[in-house]
Amino acid sequence: MALRGSTGSWFQNSKQIKGLLLDISGVLYDGGIPIDGSIQAVQKIKEAGIPVRFCTNETQCTKEQIWTKLSSLGFNVEVNEIFPPAPATCIILKERDLRPHLLVHPDVLPEFESVDKSNPNCVVLGDATDAFSYANVNNAFRTLIALENPVLLSMGRGKYYKKKDGLTLDVGAYMKALEYACDVEAEIVGKPSRSFFLTAVQDMNLQPAEVMMIGDDIVNDVGGAQACGLKGVQVRTGKFRPTDEPHAVVKPDGYVDNLAQAIDLYIEYK
Amino acid sequence: MALRGSTGSWFQNSKQIKGLLLDISGVLYDGGIPIDGSIQAVQKIKEAGIPVRFCTNETQCTKEQIWTKLSSLGFNVEVNEIFPPAPATCIILKERDLRPHLLVHPDVLPEFESVDKSNPNCVVLGDATDAFSYANVNNAFRTLIALENPVLLSMGRGKYYKKKDGLTLDVGAYMKALEYACDVEAEIVGKPSRSFFLTAVQDMNLQPAEVMMIGDDIVNDVGGAQACGLKGVQVRTGKFRPTDEPHAVVKPDGYVDNLAQAIDLYIEYK
Repeated sequence: MALRGSTGSWFQNSKQIKGLLLDISGVLYDGGIPIDGSIQAVQKIKEAGIPVRFCTNETQCTKEQIWTKLSSLGFNVEVNEIFPPAPATCIILKERDLRPHLLVHPDVLPEFESVDKSNPNCVVLGDATDAFSYANVNNAFRTLIALENPVLLSMGRGKYYKKKDGLTLDVGAYMKALEYACDVEAEIVGKPSRSFFLTAVQDMNLQPAEVMMIGDDIVNDVGGAQACGLKGVQVRTGKFRPTDEPHAVVKPDGYVDNLAQAIDLYIEYK
Repeated sequence: MALRGSTGSWFQNSKQIKGLLLDISGVLYDGGIPIDGSIQAVQKIKEAGIPVRFCTNETQCTKEQIWTKLSSLGFNVEVNEIFPPAPATCIILKERDLRPHLLVHPDVLPEFESVDKSNPNCVVLGDATDAFSYANVNNAFRTLIALENPVLLSMGRGKYYKKKDGLTLDVGAYMKALEYACDVEAEIVGKPSRSFFLTAVQDMNLQPAEVMMIGDDIVNDVGGAQACGLKGVQVRTGKFRPTDEPHAVVKPDGYVDNLAQAIDLYIEYK
């Protein structure tokens, strides 16, 4: 395969990589449509027997709904390979005896069914979209400001993402609003939090240095993974912008045009 | 008059003060009800012939509506003594050829009637309350992120204020949301912006050192005024909290129980 510039050179030294973390939106599909070659790329991963987890900050639906969507688009994915923030959040809530006031998308509520939500002692934020009404945001604010030790868990800290009809505000904007109003710092569940990456790595029985994260968000996917000792590869799809290459802060281990190219290069030099 | 602790001591040396700036919410009234003695205090100011301006970050209605409300509560106020951010914003928009996308309370829209709002090249934020729907905030975000030189004007930067039914999110939270999502820094119109205080001071034909600001917001009223060379006096009404005395950053020139006490002390030592 011809390598464009430095695109593939890193892959020649990627022999220690035994497992993959893939972002979903912007890597597998974009605006609901599979990115060219990504369905085949996932199939090649499976046929080569490479452990893989799909590491996403998607909080608009349940893990099962993510799986249904991916399957219906033609991706060969298992439900237990999908790592969204909501199940991780439930574990944290139970471990720390936290009872959440939820400001989340209605479709993700089933994930929190088993959690005690009475007399809340924390606020959990997700990508609530239209549920980010003033009344709802104000109620979350009132819960938080009334707590002696305010705890704000945010499922992701993204600024925006790409939808069919244009760029769209993500949960991070509302996280910042509540952080400012209540003088608190949110704890992030999901990328780029350390525990989130490491849980997915452990689930494959691998070490961080043995795993490559492939994502379109240079800060939260690539930089976040690298900060945990993983390798981070940037795709030029999804929310990637030419100004991300090179990036002022994050230096990916590799740049690729898309997931298909990453997987071809990885399997070629493996 | 008996002085409680250091309450009145500063007023003994306030002879250079020739004019007053008063905040409205939390100083004149609280939750729509006049604070004890404040109607009489304003009357004493008028009878003593002391120049006064009412310096407010109120953006839920027009200047005329603020005047109507104050008059109906019994305050002796003239419409031209009221300084809210919206008219100041209109002046800035016209001076800088800015055409706003407005994310403001519907009742303040008449203030922007004379402003060209076609093909927006900036976003203006006010305390929009229920108009802070996700769709409206997202539209403002899309306007801002699409601009080559994004300009965000925020009428105030308050975190929250007190309403009859409890604390309520203010415009500052939404300002932070858009700042974060678009990587911009908002320009504040209203307190604590320097030009806002100085315009009110100039309107009385006075110098900053000749003016005393009386407010309940220790950062935006008291600290903001002091940063412009005015004297700043903190009332223990409105959003004042015991933890504001002493305050980690701002050292007011004086603390008083309420506006009535401030005016009595000022007139006594004048």
